[in-house]
This record gives sequence, C-alpha cells and structure tokens, in this order.
Amino acid sequence: MGFDARTLHRIITAALDEDIGTGDLTSELILKGDESGVARAVAKNGPIILAGMEVFRQTFLACDPELKFSLCDEDGTVAPKGRVISSISGRLKGIIAAERIALNFLQRMCGIATLTRQYTECVTGTKARILDTRKTMPGLRMLDKYAVAVGGGMNHRYGLFDAVLVKDNHISAAGGIGKVLERLAVHGSVPVKVEVEVKSISELEEVLSCPGIVNVVMLDNMTIEEIRKAVARIDGKIPVEVSGNVTLSNIRTIAETGVDFISVGSLTHSAPAADISLTIE
Amino acid sequence: MGFDARTLHRIITAALDEDIGTGDLTSELILKGDESGVARAVAKNGPIILAGMEVFRQTFLACDPELKFSLCDEDGTVAPKGRVISSISGRLKGIIAAERIALNFLQRMCGIATLTRQYTECVTGTKARILDTRKTMPGLRMLDKYAVAVGGGMNHRYGLFDAVLVKDNHISAAGGIGKVLERLAVHGSVPVKVEVEVKSISELEEVLSCPGIVNVVMLDNMTIEEIRKAVARIDGKIPVEVSGNVTLSNIRTIAETGVDFISVGSLTHSAPAADISLTIE
Amino acid sequence: MGFDARTLHRIITAALDEDIGTGDLTSELILKGDESGVARAVAKNGPIILAGMEVFRQTFLACDPELKFSLCDEDGTVAPKGRVISSISGRLKGIIAAERIALNFLQRMCGIATLTRQYTECVTGTKARILDTRKTMPGLRMLDKYAVAVGGGMNHRYGLFDAVLVKDNHISAAGGIGKVLERLAVHGSVPVKVEVEVKSISELEEVLSCPGIVNVVMLDNMTIEEIRKAVARIDGKIPVEVSGNVTLSNIRTIAETGVDFISVGSLTHSAPAADISLTIE
Amino acid sequence: MGFDARTLHRIITAALDEDIGTGDLTSELILKGDESGVARAVAKNGPIILAGMEVFRQTFLACDPELKFSLCDEDGTVAPKGRVISSISGRLKGIIAAERIALNFLQRMCGIATLTRQYTECVTGTKARILDTRKTMPGLRMLDKYAVAVGGGMNHRYGLFDAVLVKDNHISAAGGIGKVLERLAVHGSVPVKVEVEVKSISELEEVLSCPGIVNVVMLDNMTIEEIRKAVARIDGKIPVEVSGNVTLSNIRTIAETGVDFISVGSLTHSAPAADISLTIE
Amino acid sequence: MGFDARTLHRIITAALDEDIGTGDLTSELILKGDESGVARAVAKNGPIILAGMEVFRQTFLACDPELKFSLCDEDGTVAPKGRVISSISGRLKGIIAAERIALNFLQRMCGIATLTRQYTECVTGTKARILDTRKTMPGLRMLDKYAVAVGGGMNHRYGLFDAVLVKDNHISAAGGIGKVLERLAVHGSVPVKVEVEVKSISELEEVLSCPGIVNVVMLDNMTIEEIRKAVARIDGKIPVEVSGNVTLSNIRTIAETGVDFISVGSLTHSAPAADISLTIE
Amino acid sequence: MGFDARTLHRIITAALDEDIGTGDLTSELILKGDESGVARAVAKNGPIILAGMEVFRQTFLACDPELKFSLCDEDGTVAPKGRVISSISGRLKGIIAAERIALNFLQRMCGIATLTRQYTECVTGTKARILDTRKTMPGLRMLDKYAVAVGGGMNHRYGLFDAVLVKDNHISAAGGIGKVLERLAVHGSVPVKVEVEVKSISELEEVLSCPGIVNVVMLDNMTIEEIRKAVARIDGKIPVEVSGNVTLSNIRTIAETGVDFISVGSLTHSAPAADISLTIE
Repeated sequence: MGFDARTLHRIITAALDEDIGTGDLTSELILKGDESGVARAVAKNGPIILAGMEVFRQTFLACDPELKFSLCDEDGTVAPKGRVISSISGRLKGIIAAERIALNFLQRMCGIATLTRQYTECVTGTKARILDTRKTMPGLRMLDKYAVAVGGGMNHRYGLFDAVLVKDNHISAAGGIGKVLERLAVHGSVPVKVEVEVKSISELEEVLSCPGIVNVVMLDNMTIEEIRKAVARIDGKIPVEVSGNVTLSNIRTIAETGVDFISVGSLTHSAPAADISLTIE
Repeated sequence: MGFDARTLHRIITAALDEDIGTGDLTSELILKGDESGVARAVAKNGPIILAGMEVFRQTFLACDPELKFSLCDEDGTVAPKGRVISSISGRLKGIIAAERIALNFLQRMCGIATLTRQYTECVTGTKARILDTRKTMPGLRMLDKYAVAVGGGMNHRYGLFDAVLVKDNHISAAGGIGKVLERLAVHGSVPVKVEVEVKSISELEEVLSCPGIVNVVMLDNMTIEEIRKAVARIDGKIPVEVSGNVTLSNIRTIAETGVDFISVGSLTHSAPAADISLTIE
Repeated sequence: MGFDARTLHRIITAALDEDIGTGDLTSELILKGDESGVARAVAKNGPIILAGMEVFRQTFLACDPELKFSLCDEDGTVAPKGRVISSISGRLKGIIAAERIALNFLQRMCGIATLTRQYTECVTGTKARILDTRKTMPGLRMLDKYAVAVGGGMNHRYGLFDAVLVKDNHISAAGGIGKVLERLAVHGSVPVKVEVEVKSISELEEVLSCPGIVNVVMLDNMTIEEIRKAVARIDGKIPVEVSGNVTLSNIRTIAETGVDFISVGSLTHSAPAADISLTIE
Repeated sequence: MGFDARTLHRIITAALDEDIGTGDLTSELILKGDESGVARAVAKNGPIILAGMEVFRQTFLACDPELKFSLCDEDGTVAPKGRVISSISGRLKGIIAAERIALNFLQRMCGIATLTRQYTECVTGTKARILDTRKTMPGLRMLDKYAVAVGGGMNHRYGLFDAVLVKDNHISAAGGIGKVLERLAVHGSVPVKVEVEVKSISELEEVLSCPGIVNVVMLDNMTIEEIRKAVARIDGKIPVEVSGNVTLSNIRTIAETGVDFISVGSLTHSAPAADISLTIE
Repeated sequence: MGFDARTLHRIITAALDEDIGTGDLTSELILKGDESGVARAVAKNGPIILAGMEVFRQTFLACDPELKFSLCDEDGTVAPKGRVISSISGRLKGIIAAERIALNFLQRMCGIATLTRQYTECVTGTKARILDTRKTMPGLRMLDKYAVAVGGGMNHRYGLFDAVLVKDNHISAAGGIGKVLERLAVHGSVPVKVEVEVKSISELEEVLSCPGIVNVVMLDNMTIEEIRKAVARIDGKIPVEVSGNVTLSNIRTIAETGVDFISVGSLTHSAPAADISLTIE
Repeated sequence: MGFDARTLHRIITAALDEDIGTGDLTSELILKGDESGVARAVAKNGPIILAGMEVFRQTFLACDPELKFSLCDEDGTVAPKGRVISSISGRLKGIIAAERIALNFLQRMCGIATLTRQYTECVTGTKARILDTRKTMPGLRMLDKYAVAVGGGMNHRYGLFDAVLVKDNHISAAGGIGKVLERLAVHGSVPVKVEVEVKSISELEEVLSCPGIVNVVMLDNMTIEEIRKAVARIDGKIPVEVSGNVTLSNIRTIAETGVDFISVGSLTHSAPAADISLTIE
C-alpha cells in the first residue's frame, strides 16, 4: 500500500495550478505576507477513517516548503467528531493558499476510506473481500484506490493495462463466450491474470469446461439465487467475483453465498466527502 | 455557459492515459480489431439532468475519430429511467476502450446537475440563487462548475485568481475585519469583485460602515435567526450570500429570509454518480 | 503585488531551454568548469526603476543553485547610471550560461517599470490611475503586469477569464449596445466586474439608462472634448476609463478631465529595454 | 527562412492558454455563439514591413479551424497606412477570442521587421550585413529571429548550442585570450563556427597569430577609429563583426569602415510594436 | 499485438523535436520547399523481419500529413536483401526532414524482430517460448516489446506495475525466500501474476511447499544440469522460466530440458540495427 | 564534454515513469519499506570503458535522494572484468526501483564508449578522427553522443539545426550539385559550418571549383581507390570526411589514405550493451 511520489507531485501541482492560476488575489490584497500562525484541521463529524494525510501534507509543502507539522495523524486512524487531526505552523499566506485544495483531497479520500470500512464491516466473518472498480474520478485513480485500501478494501486491476477482464461487451463483440475462450487458449499464458464475466449458468459452464484459461470468474448482475447456484457449480475450482447493484443492504447476503470477491463501484463514484475544516487560531 | 476546448482535450487525454496506460490488454487478446457495431447509453434510473454529453462524445472520438453518433442528447435534457441518451456506431475496439472513462465523466456531471436541480427547485419563487464553491474535484473544476450551471445553479468564482473573497482565516491573519477594510480601501478598485465573510452582526456593521468597498457580503454559518437579522440590517444595500451547513431540508427556510445567494459545497463534493450504462447490441 | 512561484519556475526553465538547448558549446570548450569569480550587474544608463530582480536571481539559481548573491537590489529602487544593482559569486560556468537570459528578463521588466513611472508621474495630482492592457508579450504576461505594478501602474484584468470587458467587436457581433445590456441584465450578477466600451455619447446614455449592470465604462478613442462631455454626463455615477492613442504628451490633458483610469498599451508592447550589463571581474 | 511548425503550434497554444485561461467570459455572456461575420486587419500607421502573417493566421485557426481567410498578405510586403492586410470570415466567437493574441504576435513581429529594414537601408551599398543577437524575448526567439530575416537582417547563432562565441566574460574566466586560443587549438575542428570577441588591437593580434582557429572576429564596443584600425590590420583574412552601441545614427559610419557584420540588439529588445487593428464589420 | 496511438504520437514527436530542434538548416538553404518526388526504402542486407512499418509511416506523416505511401510492407514480412519495402511520394522537404528518424526507429525495430526470430527458430519443436525483459531502451519500451512480438517472441511484464517478479535482490532484502512466501501468503490474491526467482533447488523446494502462491517460477543463472533437475522436481506443477546467460548457441539445449519460457535480455539491449536505406529518385 | 542537467533530469524521469508506472508492485508486497543495505555494481565482462556513471547515479537519486555513493567510478575509466564500479547504500526500496533503469542507461553508454574506443584504437597514428552520426536512439541522442566522446570519438553535428550537411537526397532534390553550390553562394555566410557529400570525383571537382563555400567535404560510399584519388585531388585544401560501410576491419585502411574524419553509424545504432550487474549484499 503506497503510491508513487512523482505521480503525487504532478497531481498536487496540477490541482494547485487549477485553483491558484495567476495568483491568490485575496492574500495579495489583505496580507503583508509575513504573518505567521497555527492552523488546525478538525473532523467536523465522525467517525472518519483517515486517508490521504500525506497528500494533505504535501499540498501545504508545495505552497511553502517551510511549513511545520507538529501533528499529522496516520492513515487508517479512526477520528471521532471533534478530533484535531493535523496542526500546521508557519507563514499564513501559504497555509491559506493550500487550504482548500488540501481539504478537497483529504475530504474525498477520507470519504472513500470511511465508506469502504462500512462495506468491509458488513462482510466480517465471511471470506468475501471488497474490491474497487475503474469507476474512479478521472485523474485521481491512484488516490482513490489508495483510499479504498486504507479502508480495508482490496484493489482490483489499476486500468486496462494490468489485467485481462473480459466483460459482456467484449463477449458480444467477439461473438460469444466460446470464441472468447478459444482466443484466450490460442494466446496461451500472458503475464497478467485473466478474468471473465458470465451472465448465466450456461456461460459459466463454458468457462468451466476449459480449465486453466481463466483465473477469476465474475458473476455479473445475478440474483442471489443465481449466485448461490453458480458458487455451488464452481465448487472452489476458481475464485469468484460478484459485481453489480451491490449496496450496504444486500452485501452481507451476497457475501454469505461464499463468493471470494465483491466489487463495489460506489466506493469511488459516490462516496460523500468527509467533513473536515481548517481553522487558524 | 460553455467550456474551453483545449482544456477539455487535455482532461480527456489525461484520463484516457491513466486508464489505458500501455494498452488495452483485453481487446488486444479478444478482438481482431475490425469488429463493428452499435452501442447505446441508457439512463438506469431517473430522472437524470443530462450534463457532459459533449465530454462523453469527445472521449469516444479521442479513441477513434471515425465513430458516429446517431444520437447524443443535449445537456439540460431530463432523462427518465430507461431513456436511450446516446447511440454510437463504429469499430468496437475504440468504443470499448473509451466506455469506462466516458461514463465516469458523464455519470459525475449528470450527478452534479441532478443534485443542483433539486436544490434550485427548493428555492423556486424566492430570489435566492444557488452558487457552487471551490470544493470541486481536483483537476475537474471546469467540468464540475459547468454541470452546476446546467443544473440551474450559478457559478461562484472559478479560483483564487478571479475574485476576492475574504474569509475568516484571512480576517484572523490580518488582525480583524477593521484591518481588512482598511487594506481594501487603500488598494482602491480592483478589476474583480470583492466579497467579505462576516460571522456576526458586529462584523457586518463594520462592513456596512465602509460603503463602496465590498461588493457582496457572505454570512458564514449563521443561524436562521441571525440571517434574518442580517438581511434586515443590510436592507438591500449590498447583495448577501449565505454559506455553511446548507442542506435540501433547510435551504427553503434560508431562501425565504430574502438572501440573494446560497452556496452549497455538497453540489460538487458529495453528489452521487448518476446511473448510466453502455450496452453493445 | 507578487507572482506565482510555480509559474515563474516554468517561464525561466523554458527560456533557458530555448537558449541553452543541447548545451553551452563555448563554455564546454573554453572553461574547465570549476573556475569561480564575481560578476556585477550595472545600470548602463539611468535612472532605471528596477523590476524583476527576483526573476534575475532565480534564473542564475536555475543554472547553479550554489551561486551566492551578496547584493540584489529591491524592486522599485531607482538606479542611477553606473549603479551596481547585483553582485553574484560562484562558479563562472553557471553565471555565463544564465547571463543573457537573466538580463533579457531584467532589461524588459525594468524597461516596462521605467516607462510606467514616466506615465504615472505625468498624472500626479489628478485622480487618474494608469492601467495596463492585454497587449503583453505572449508567455510573459505575469512578468509584464508585475513590472507595470512596480512602476506605479495598476493592473487591468489578467485575461479573458477574470473580468467582462465588452468591446466594439462584441457590440457589433451582438447587434448593438442595447442587445448587450439586455443580455447582461438577464445573466444577473456574475462574480467578476463588467466593463463596457462606448464610442459615443449616445452609447453612453444607453449604459447610464440601465443602472446596476455596468461596473466601469470605457471611453474608446474619444477626443478630449468628447471625454469631457462624457465625464460631465456620468457625473461620478460610475468609474470611467479612457483608452486609445494615449501618449506621454497627451496623458496629462486626459487625466485632467477627471477620468478614473487611463489604459496605455505601449507600457507593455513598446517599452524599450533598460540598458544593464553584467561583467565578470 | 521558415520556422518549425510544431514549435509554432506550442507557442500559439501557450499564448492562448495564458489569455483565455478558464474561458472567455465576455463572449460567453454576450454572444449566442453562432453569430458570424467578417473581420479586417488594418495597418494603422505605416509603412509597415509585414512579418508573422502565418503566425497571425494560425492563431485564429487554433481558436476555430473553420475560419476562412479571403486575404492574408505575404510576409515582406510593405503595407502603407490604411492597408487592409487580412480579411477573416466565420464565427465571431473564435475571431474575438483569438484577436488580441494574434495581434500581439503580429504587431511585435512587424515591429521587428520594420526596424530591421530601417537598419538595413542605412547600410545599402556597403558590404555590411545586419545581424541579430540573443537579446530576444524569452520564449519567442524563433519568431523574433524570423522577423529579423524578413526585414532583411541575417540571423546570428540561435542559442548557446549552435555556434561558439567567446565573449569578454569567457576570456576573463579562462585567464586571457592566449588561454582561449590554446584551448580552441587543442579541441581542433568542431562542427560549428568559432567566433571570438576582442576588445583591443593587441587581443586582435593574438587571434591573427593563430590562423585557422577562429572563423569570425568580433570587435566589441570599439570606437570608429579603433574599428578602422582593426579592419586594416585584418585585411580580409577573416570576417569581422562589430557589436555594441549601434544606433540608426552611427551604423552607416560603422558600415563604411568595411566590416562584414554589424549586430544590433535593439532589433529584438527594443523594437516598438507596429500599430495594427482588427475590426468586425 | 498492437500499440497505443497516443503514446506512439508522443514518442515520434519527441524524436523529431530532438533532431529538428530549431529547424532543418540544410533544407532551408538548399530547397525551395515545393520540390516533390518519390523516395524508396530498401533492405540493404537480409533477410530482415520487418517491424515498425507503421512507426516509420507515422514519422513521415508527422512531418508532412500529405505524403502518400504507394507501398508500405506489413510487419512480419521477411524482406530479402534488395527488397523495396516502402515507397513514399510528395514534397521532398518533409521526406528529408523525417528520413533519419523514421529509419532510426525502423532499423532498431527490424533489428530486434530479426534477432528474436533467430532465437525462436532455435527452439522450434520444443514447448519453450522466448520472452523479452525490461532491458529495453529507455523511452522506447513499447516499440521494443512490440518488435519482439513481431519476431515471434512473447512479452514478459511491461514494467514494475503489471506483474510481481520477486528477484534475488528482493529475497536478500526481505531476509530469505521463506519470508517472501510468508508475505505473499498474507496479501492473498492480487490482480496480477506472481513470479519468483530461485537460485537453487532448496529455494525451489520452499516455493513448491507453498502451493497456490506462485504462478511462475524463474530459474536464475542455473547450469543445464541444475535446470534439468529443477524441471524434474517441478514436474509440470507450475510453469518454469529460465533466465541468464542465454545465447543463440545454448538456447536449444536449454529448451530441450522442457522449460516453458526462456527470457533473453539481448533481444532488446544488444540487437544490431537492420540495414535499411532511403533513396530519392 | 558534458551534458545539460535539465535535459538529463527529464530523460531519467521519463524512463522511470515508463518502468514504474503506477507503482512497484513487488516491493510493495515484499518489503516493509525501511530495509536498508548496500548494493554493488560490477563489470561482468571486460574491459569496459565506463561512460554514464553520473546518469547511473542520478537515476538512483531520482528514486531516493538520500541514497549514498561510497564509490562511483569516473567516466573514461577502463574497468576490467570483476571490478566493482559503484557502491550504493541506503533504503533498498529505492535501490531496487531504480536498478533496472540505471543499468539500462549505463550498459548502453558503456557499450557505446567501449566500441568507440575500439574504433579509435584502430586509427592510432593517423590523423583520422572518429565521428558519430545522427543514427542514435530516439530520445537518447545527448547520452549517445556523450558516450562517443568518452570513448575518444568526436561529435558530428547534434541534429538538423546546428550544421548544414548536404547529402545525396538534397542534391537530387535540388537538381544537381551545381544548383546546391549556387544556392549556398547566394545565402553567403551562415553561422554554422557547411558540409557537402560527394559521390564521385566529378562532384568533388565542382565543389573545389567554388572555394570558400564548403567547410568540409564528405566522400560517401567510395572505394578505397576513389578515396585515395579524392584525397590527392583535394590536397589539404579542405577537410575530408569518409562515410559509409566503415567497419573495424577496414577503418585502418581508410584512415591511412589521409582523410580527416571517418563517421561510423554503428557506434550508436549497433553497439552491444556492456555487461554490468547490481547485487545487494
């Protein structure tokens, strides 16, 4: 669990450029520039699973490398309402310039981690693990996926380049699952894993009839009844992922069917921001 | 209402790079490359306020400039559940490569526009207008703000560079609102508008005692009672914005106090994604 | 008054890349690389209003971060002919590589500040303030506008994005000033200021008949007589800017009509470079 | 004489980004977007030597590729006051967005070409050719040098990478001209030309005593008397360049001494912009 | 087998920028610009396995989009000495500007494909497949790997991000292969494949004692005798890769031990360029 | 001999991005992150001419700026088989992330320097100097040319922008060598050198008949007999370069004809990588 420092630097720089543009007019007018003080970041509601504290910190340092953090909680910490999670001292000009963007990153990442934790808690005691999807915010996938991991979720493939995932549209395009399995067989082993989505028990049977080709099977938009039938049919021969229409209400039932993975798009496309504010004393 | 074509191009390119990286492994294995067909985008629940259809379209064209759109609904359209909002024909390889990113953009933008519409409908008949904030997704501010406008909201300043907005942290840093007004007076007119946040009636009185300096006054985190008092005291001399803790439940009451603007951070930091899918026939 | 550090870094890097390209052939041939010494920058004529000393300094540091400045005068200083304005010590290789670009920046910025000062001195005692325009050097607007401010001028809008300025070509395109005012009224308040250019008293009357819509009125290419008439007609109800054909010879007369702002394109499109040289001892 | 298309594209894009930023607010408010018309560029004073017409044209096309040019005069044309030099038709939105930047490029380039022509006319009938220097606008060197060539000047080296030019600061750093010549001799032939600056007849003698090493000799800041002496001493054995304090008043006298090249920094650091305007009918 | 169009575009653009820089001086001096003609690319020795013909073609089109290819052989074609593999017609200026870079790409890619073919032919009839490595030319990995595939090799992981490959240095760092297997077991399934390098039969035994964790085992720098022993011990339970000191002389013997994959660094770090020239008629 | 620090930084960053992409999966799984140790780079065969040690060092520092080098041999050193050429200590995570790319650079550069040395040794005692060509790896020309210089070769022009080299295709395009010389004469002196390729004694005669225009003449693909004739004919009046089909076998014979320069494409298009490995203790 970690992220690439050079990519993080580029994301932060682009975000600051977008916001600051040709300059922070308000500070230029109101501040002399050398005022200094202390700012505190506080969880306004809770509990929040903290994620992105390093992103938060680097955003301030990008505006003023001389700012000091006397406190910066660790990712994974559970912050109750009212907790001071960071304390920053130094020139106020840089603190104020970075504030909104640092919070935009942190509130999103904490929101994702907190929602992920709710999903993982729902499946406690089952063998099911929560996966994320590619339904992330364009440009922020690295941060979104990191926040899922902090929340206890597991990362699915990063993008189109690091795993094979044959979905319904590929199957239509190829002319059926039989054709798909044929082509996978021809290409032999590839350096990444191969996952295939099935929409019915009969598609599943076709996959099972070609052992050694598919590493994970995905049950797409099936009912609980169908999932149970599929799990029984697979019988542990191959890991199973469930995808589609998963909510906090139905995930426990799905997990109890004995599937290995449940992927949840809303972790990254609909997590509400955590409420965190920054106040200068 | 519009957005800059060059910036849009860069946002789309970066998002595709992030997802496709070194290549779409699945299509390379499964497709021959020249399969063609038709894909349809459908609203899976509704009603959705469409926003971002041009972003959606350009994302597909970035992957294959020869794709054709026989249907691409206009932004602002209200799409009921089940409506086909776009129809794309051409090589499936490009359609499949673009699909997820095109939907990621569209689902976010429609989510924002739909939520904004809910807020604007709450204030119908009052003079209050809904404003967005800088609490947007890093890197996507142009698209976020555009979606707010499509939903009937009004755009507040774009960033730190195109308006002066003196907030509590500036006031602390400067040493009180009196100092702030003094410095604004010294600098005289600037080519952008000046808004000042007040936390109490006494701060408001200070602003009102210096006419001609402040273009908009923001009432920050005040109770309804305080807002009423402030509006009465201002008496139309200067436009008033309310900010902080605004929800779908309390916005009507706020609007009925007679304020001019109500800014809502959750429009862009917590709008759930609209549910839209793409299916190849 | 200040400028964004990240943007400055990019401007300096691009300028050095343009000049150094694949390497400084002369130093590679002539120097061993570890020669060190002291270089002094001197005003060759004067008085020069210094502007851009930090740009000058950062350009040298971009070539060799270990160079030391025992002297680097402040912006706004009036340098008489012969004054040593900066003294740099360290490895000569970096000093020589940076020299021309550092001077190119500094000579332009000092040239602009010095010319601006001449204009502002012409209007001493009147209420008129000198504004810059968008007639800046492509890629260098931030530096050009900063130099104007150092010279005592005031910055007009930065670009097309941070203020509304309706000019003759917009009025033609829209079909007359009546249409323009109509559309501005429909859109209601925007977060930036609105300025409208008028070419005649009758256009001015139309603007005045719609109070509350236009924040500044610009008198474009009017004669002194027309300006006087317009100022009398406006009678302080709205700030007035004069634009077009302003020179050091006629600016005092214009200022004495009582206008608030006079914008001068030549500050940035035709300021001659200040004469500054660098000598290694 | 020409310039690299990819570099031009990057320069134009950066300039438009700088000006348009997050969008052209005025056109968004005032125009519907589909208004069309014809714009004409006119020389407001003259005669102007046109340079940069292709840069002008490409700037408009970067904003709207469907604009049509029924007229676009050729570089090198002498435009008298009042001449229509270009006529553009199409959607006004793009024309207005591009206008200022297109003119900023064109006015600078025509200004340089026109000033260069004045210098070249001063030396008619002598063998002296006018050279530019590296005193160009950071980021715009390609355009500046092109404009000099259009005006009849000759381009000196592009940057530090495509010729060796040993100046006074190199000579100091190396420890005298003797050392310089020694090192040049050791390195033998390089794929670029070698020019050496001399400040006195004795330095010149040293250069002449090492034939075959130096391709051009530069007389730096010498009086007319010294130049005459140097030319006599060199006696055609090696091309001679004069540099330093060259003006329109003294260039003829310098040229008549029989030197081969005269370099003029003010061509690119102090050329006033040509006066050109764009009007929509 | 294919490559990402946007990445290819960036690679070609960077290569042309590196070579053309501030302009093609020779063509600017020698050509009028509108000369046109036909150029033919010819294999100067052979047989060459063609790879990169599309890269070759796009490089020319990047210099002049109007060039026409009446012939452009397909990748994978075996070109004997003397074969005309491409024929290009249009303006000579663009053909000459692109020529060297287009050939630099093509000669490298054909060199790699031709060498790969020699290796694959050595193992005909065995089940061994030839793999590439990460020993590619910095910046050109996409092209290098594509050329290997054209030559009949199989691509190993693209980079550090799309597969887990535990090498000797990881094992040292972790404190032994036992620790490595422990950590892999804790992390459970990851979306990519896991390969582990072993240097001895005892390390191999440890891997085999933890079934289900490692997808491929790599025998690093083993003798033929050790490889045979390892293959016998593994007995088909897990795919085996051999790496280290593989040459055209010993690869057949290695393949005949029954291993699944043999990786060959020299395919991409030491392939000599194919000899191809371009002549204008 | 040196290279531009900013360009080097960009090359290294791009290479690391290409390899590390979204993260080093193996280290993330296997390492805790704070393990530290010592790594040694060793010449696996030899003798190797070291070139690129600074590139090697900077690549590690780009991954972890706190790594320490207790040993880093100088470029130009002759490393026998088994020699430890560098010793690096610090966190293993960064060492492992940088290892492959650092070696990819170093193995290529040492390969080029070592091959260049073989060529230069072949011509010892003659006046011939070995030149490189533009047949370099796209994107790595600066490093390739530097390595040639370390190996004792001399750098020809960097690209199309810093010297004029009229080749056969230009001569065809222009309509014969007569036309070429005519145009060169018209343009007069340019700030770079002019080299012209001749294919026959008669073309050579034409060049010699226009003294003062051509700085170097290139004999392209001539036989030894023709080269001898050409050298005799030129008789020292102008430096001579031989190009085409030069190998380690025939270069001595060519050099003994008395030519000044021999250019060798294979130095950079076909140098095999030097064998260097990195081991953690």
